[in-house]
Amino acid sequence: MTVLVFIDPDYPAGRIADAKLPQLFATDLGATRGDGIFESLLVVEGKPKKIQAHLNRLASSAQLLELQIPSQQQWLAAVDTAITAFGQPDAVVKLLVTRGIEGRPNPTAWVQIFAPPALGKQQRESGLDVLLLDRGYDSDLAQRAPWLLLGAKTLSYAVNMAALRYAHQQGADDVIFTSSDGRVLEGPTSSVLIARREGEKKRLVTPQLDAGILPGTTQGALFAAAQQAGWELGYGPLVPQDLFEADAAWLISSVRLLAPINRIDGQEIGSTQDRTELSAELSAILADTE
Amino acid sequence: MTVLVFIDPDYPAGRIADAKLPQLFATDLGATRGDGIFESLLVVEGKPKKIQAHLNRLASSAQLLELQIPSQQQWLAAVDTAITAFGQPDAVVKLLVTRGIEGRPNPTAWVQIFAPPALGKQQRESGLDVLLLDRGYDSDLAQRAPWLLLGAKTLSYAVNMAALRYAHQQGADDVIFTSSDGRVLEGPTSSVLIARREGEKKRLVTPQLDAGILPGTTQGALFAAAQQAGWELGYGPLVPQDLFEADAAWLISSVRLLAPINRIDGQEIGSTQDRTELSAELSAILADTE
Repeated sequence: MTVLVFIDPDYPAGRIADAKLPQLFATDLGATRGDGIFESLLVVEGKPKKIQAHLNRLASSAQLLELQIPSQQQWLAAVDTAITAFGQPDAVVKLLVTRGIEGRPNPTAWVQIFAPPALGKQQRESGLDVLLLDRGYDSDLAQRAPWLLLGAKTLSYAVNMAALRYAHQQGADDVIFTSSDGRVLEGPTSSVLIARREGEKKRLVTPQLDAGILPGTTQGALFAAAQQAGWELGYGPLVPQDLFEADAAWLISSVRLLAPINRIDGQEIGSTQDRTELSAELSAILADTE
Repeated sequence: MTVLVFIDPDYPAGRIADAKLPQLFATDLGATRGDGIFESLLVVEGKPKKIQAHLNRLASSAQLLELQIPSQQQWLAAVDTAITAFGQPDAVVKLLVTRGIEGRPNPTAWVQIFAPPALGKQQRESGLDVLLLDRGYDSDLAQRAPWLLLGAKTLSYAVNMAALRYAHQQGADDVIFTSSDGRVLEGPTSSVLIARREGEKKRLVTPQLDAGILPGTTQGALFAAAQQAGWELGYGPLVPQDLFEADAAWLISSVRLLAPINRIDGQEIGSTQDRTELSAELSAILADTE
């Protein structure tokens, strides 16, 4: 089941709409130009996880696209309405905003809620085979070319979807993009994370944000909690060799959470024992975050 | 007025739908992932211009996205229905296909018809101020990274729209993208064309296709007709200096047609007289094409 809640000035708590009927105009710039932004987040026991981080990132994406979007209060009300209407304690919520119907001034904004996909649990438990694929961009491009919208979570995800199809055809599960100057960037729908044991120290490292990647909300929550638990933190730059030499590596995202990487380009990352132990430890830390 | 005609197995000539009502599902992957493709073309005196070239390019985009799309016969029938329902002899037709509603096997495909925008005529007559903007990709990337969908006309156009907004903010009208290795690529919604007079010879040049740009259907039609009229043809590579040294340059596309470039990054291209004369000559050649 999927429930939709549109943000609509006539409905302060959001307007519930039937997902089994057409609800978008064919001239909506989201559909014709991929011109919009989104967020996906998990609802656990009826409570949206790290909603503020997602609203902050949505606002940041909106700024990069110069898109006027509803207020945080409107989003929170619509999310509440969606969770209540959905009626199940565990769910995935998406927040979506497009530039609206062509020729009209207002964005189209809605919340979608649905059951968590089974694939997420399976990949958390079994791990991933990942391919490194060239994203084609230099790691220093984001600053000098704001029109490329690097760092915005846009609805123009055709390349992300194509990269995943390409990986599946090669027998892999997922992708890590690299920059044309050889840096590790992110997955098509996730952040990259590695763990290194250095004597007594344990260190978590993720690629640096100024490479034009999305700031991972789940990576951010895990970093804050892991630091409390005694982990050291690092922010790239990372190159593929850092992945191959890690004690464990993960793709981390809001819905699938912490999915361990078994192999990259066919080469095993760490050992089964390290992956299992470190995944269990970090998943427990992550589960305790808001 | 806008008329929609959906391709629907139950309606061999296409199903006419009201553009003033919602017609797309909010879970359509076109709207949530920009996962689809499109074409735009002109209808003149009730006849779609170079429809076969557009259907061929749509098929090529579909292949790059591994998207099953309706047959050419279905598209032609829907376009006919749209032109008849629209009732005006001059129009713009868009063909759109998305990967369909999430979880269902069929694409969503429709034709949209509407009146030609007034801006096109104005820009053909007055010319354009253009900015060169970095597209961030190497010109040899398309071959080695098919997952980047270079050369496909996808619905993921957020970057193209952002580049146009950026240009407008700088007081310019349009954009020419350059590759990170300094080659001239294309506009966000057009091909680039330059003319050089070399003694008695007249030469038209457009960037080479293997740089990962869209094959321009209007550029292709003009090239074929101009060759018949005695012009020599060339296919890049072009660098910005070639634009600055041209006798005239244009952005050429299916709806706006041949729009002369007055200035690039503030620098005049050719002379007013050359631009006027060459634009008139080539526009007449283009008007005579199918």
